[in-house]
Amino acid sequence: MAVEAARVNDDLIEALREIVGPRLSTSAAVCEQHGRDESYHTPHPPDVVVFAESTDEVAGIVKACARRQVPVIPFGAGTSLEGHVAALHGGVCIDLGAMDQVVAVNPEDMDATVQAGVTRAQLNTYLRDTGLFFPIDPGAEASIGGMTATRASGTNAVRYGTMRENVLALIVVLADGRVIRTSRRARKSSAGYDLTRLFVGSEGTLGVITEITLRLYGIPEAISAAVCAFPTVADAVNTVILTIQSGVPVARIELLDKRQMEAVNTYSDLEYAAAPTLFFEFHGTERAVAEQAETVQAIAADLGGENFAWATRPEDRDKLWKARHDALYASLALRPGCRGWVTDVCVPISRLAECITETTADLEKSPLIATIVGHVGDGNFHVVLLVDPDQAEEIAEAERFNERLVMRALAMDGTCTGEHGIGHGKMDFLIAEHGEAVGVMRAIKQALDPDNIMNPGKIVRV
Amino acid sequence: MAVEAARVNDDLIEALREIVGPRLSTSAAVCEQHGRDESYHTPHPPDVVVFAESTDEVAGIVKACARRQVPVIPFGAGTSLEGHVAALHGGVCIDLGAMDQVVAVNPEDMDATVQAGVTRAQLNTYLRDTGLFFPIDPGAEASIGGMTATRASGTNAVRYGTMRENVLALIVVLADGRVIRTSRRARKSSAGYDLTRLFVGSEGTLGVITEITLRLYGIPEAISAAVCAFPTVADAVNTVILTIQSGVPVARIELLDKRQMEAVNTYSDLEYAAAPTLFFEFHGTERAVAEQAETVQAIAADLGGENFAWATRPEDRDKLWKARHDALYASLALRPGCRGWVTDVCVPISRLAECITETTADLEKSPLIATIVGHVGDGNFHVVLLVDPDQAEEIAEAERFNERLVMRALAMDGTCTGEHGIGHGKMDFLIAEHGEAVGVMRAIKQALDPDNIMNPGKIVRV
Repeated sequence: MAVEAARVNDDLIEALREIVGPRLSTSAAVCEQHGRDESYHTPHPPDVVVFAESTDEVAGIVKACARRQVPVIPFGAGTSLEGHVAALHGGVCIDLGAMDQVVAVNPEDMDATVQAGVTRAQLNTYLRDTGLFFPIDPGAEASIGGMTATRASGTNAVRYGTMRENVLALIVVLADGRVIRTSRRARKSSAGYDLTRLFVGSEGTLGVITEITLRLYGIPEAISAAVCAFPTVADAVNTVILTIQSGVPVARIELLDKRQMEAVNTYSDLEYAAAPTLFFEFHGTERAVAEQAETVQAIAADLGGENFAWATRPEDRDKLWKARHDALYASLALRPGCRGWVTDVCVPISRLAECITETTADLEKSPLIATIVGHVGDGNFHVVLLVDPDQAEEIAEAERFNERLVMRALAMDGTCTGEHGIGHGKMDFLIAEHGEAVGVMRAIKQALDPDNIMNPGKIVRV
Repeated sequence: MAVEAARVNDDLIEALREIVGPRLSTSAAVCEQHGRDESYHTPHPPDVVVFAESTDEVAGIVKACARRQVPVIPFGAGTSLEGHVAALHGGVCIDLGAMDQVVAVNPEDMDATVQAGVTRAQLNTYLRDTGLFFPIDPGAEASIGGMTATRASGTNAVRYGTMRENVLALIVVLADGRVIRTSRRARKSSAGYDLTRLFVGSEGTLGVITEITLRLYGIPEAISAAVCAFPTVADAVNTVILTIQSGVPVARIELLDKRQMEAVNTYSDLEYAAAPTLFFEFHGTERAVAEQAETVQAIAADLGGENFAWATRPEDRDKLWKARHDALYASLALRPGCRGWVTDVCVPISRLAECITETTADLEKSPLIATIVGHVGDGNFHVVLLVDPDQAEEIAEAERFNERLVMRALAMDGTCTGEHGIGHGKMDFLIAEHGEAVGVMRAIKQALDPDNIMNPGKIVRV
């Protein structure tokens, strides 16, 4: 049985003040802001928010909470999409935003160590003069700590991997306040259980990640981008499959469906064909990039790809990518006043055309208004449902649609979430996906957090 | 306290016979063979060896052992190097060699599912007509199950990653006989704790891996190889650093030290310079491979690299790589009758030259005869100590040298093992490396294997 969560009392507030001084708030506005993310999920404010500035402070805060069995909810930038930061049982939110220091950059080793509150944009700005960059780019301006905790990815995972592949080591505050480092800085190791990968994607339920060592990459000598429209989604996806199979180390392949292209044409005053469209980016030497673009153009042409446009100058590339960058806002503009409910499944690439085609047919039968965008090189796509949060029946239909989508993906050997995580929004889908293995996850949760104080009510029920 | 291991009795033998019929042996020769690996560690034979042919059989065997609290030791090809298969507390060895079926190949998704006993050579032979291959190549003819359990890598991890990056999903028999699948076939997922990565590298201590789904890669259109000698190890390693930093997607960079080059010249009748030498391999299109070789040649020339030789035809490449392939046998031939004690550390690449230089100086002060080979693109290298197992003082000096080497690597933010694993040979080094984090590993071990029957006495003490 779950341990009933204790509530925050004056004694705990006093203990927290001893650690963080005035960097603590119980104001309704601050608590409310820390109980919501960017999703459609109902906010659940914590009882108190503390703003930590070091691993030691986090350890002290967790110890104070552990002693009193009060829930601890880590908070990065609040950009998650499955209710990860909701304080379902009240408790103490630890805002890590002020832990925004780049601790070390080792250019020779192509790695950097950052505090959890550093955002990806901040890190890349910091790295500007080193010739290195950190590639993982979820849509939001997320913190590296949050990206690690949700095993995030983004548009260029097809080339550079996700947070799973790009975190080298972590400093983690455990549920009893002990501090561990999960790994050394060596690029590979066979020394014991892979604690780094266990904490990547653990969503604050096993401990608080306070420092992250990341792989960096050399900024490519040349970058080129290309856009190409296709008669059908299947043609576009088959182009993706052949591109990947041919070994072209494409950095990005993004799909926008017909409705999404119409939306961006209207929103951004562009004149792209109203058809399923792929956006590509290639990284490498001048010669390699040209060669990659030629190969892909030939593959696309065989599958009915038209108006293959490509660009190498930064300003031309930016123009080319504008439609992709504006996709979410363009979708929201289709229905002023709505909220975006962003789904997130990922299937083996061989099933992607089928999955998107069936999903499009499902959408056409439903009253929902939606667009589709996808990191299709990985088999990952999102349906952006434009819903009115005040219309209960519409929300219910969105829920049913989302469930059908997840079950369709699972039936194709896919996953219920490619990059957004479980939070409390997808706990039932986790069981549908993993079955007996959820019992192993629960055993790990109980072993590392016996009192269930670390972000309780997320990922697994205990 | 550890649960004292129960011993195999007639009742258990009877229960095992009901599962595997005649595929069971208690003969001294069979047990002895299954208690030894390829290392210098003392063999510890199990009480009985069963030859499993399916996941169901493995589940039945583990259940029978669990009921009686008898240890279970999974056995692949017996090529491990830290005593992983030693039956320290007796028990039942499950030989998975007969689980040698390729279950499925999905060329469109570039993945394959194999039973644990399939070897990497077998898999690549099977894949020959698909245009795909599986890149991970530890020195030995290991089984994929064993490679997964030790988080193995090899010469081309610098390009393709290790088993950590290349396993997509596992079927695992848990300590109580339950069977789980750790993941779907989708290329990425944020659905719950990363059980796949937890079992990769768990060395049979958390469960028995019976099926593995692997990433595959397209066979490159062109492959070229190059060899280059350097004045010093530092020059060679600096060439490696600059190559990696320049973004050249080199597939292999292997270092052989001066003594190793002398050994292969003698052993294989070659005429390479007796100097620290790098062996490169490049994968890509014809143009890309030529461009990569040019870039590397320019970097090497700046650092005193001489006699840069390169080859693109298969037979010329094979000739070029012969020195590397023969390295172990050439070393052993330096001292007929000796055994090779192969160490295995990995450091951040910025510290590699320093680590190898200090290690070479250490060797020169010791009476030990040794060669150095390294997967230097990852910062990983091996010292092959040529020891007479009957000379206790020599073994003691090898132990002291190995400890100095590990402590040197740890002081440089490296790991005590890049690819061989912990087994029972490096358990103290694991504590030196991970400190408090070993407590987390122990908590996981106890949660998933409360009776400590899964390969007991390896990785963590309970």
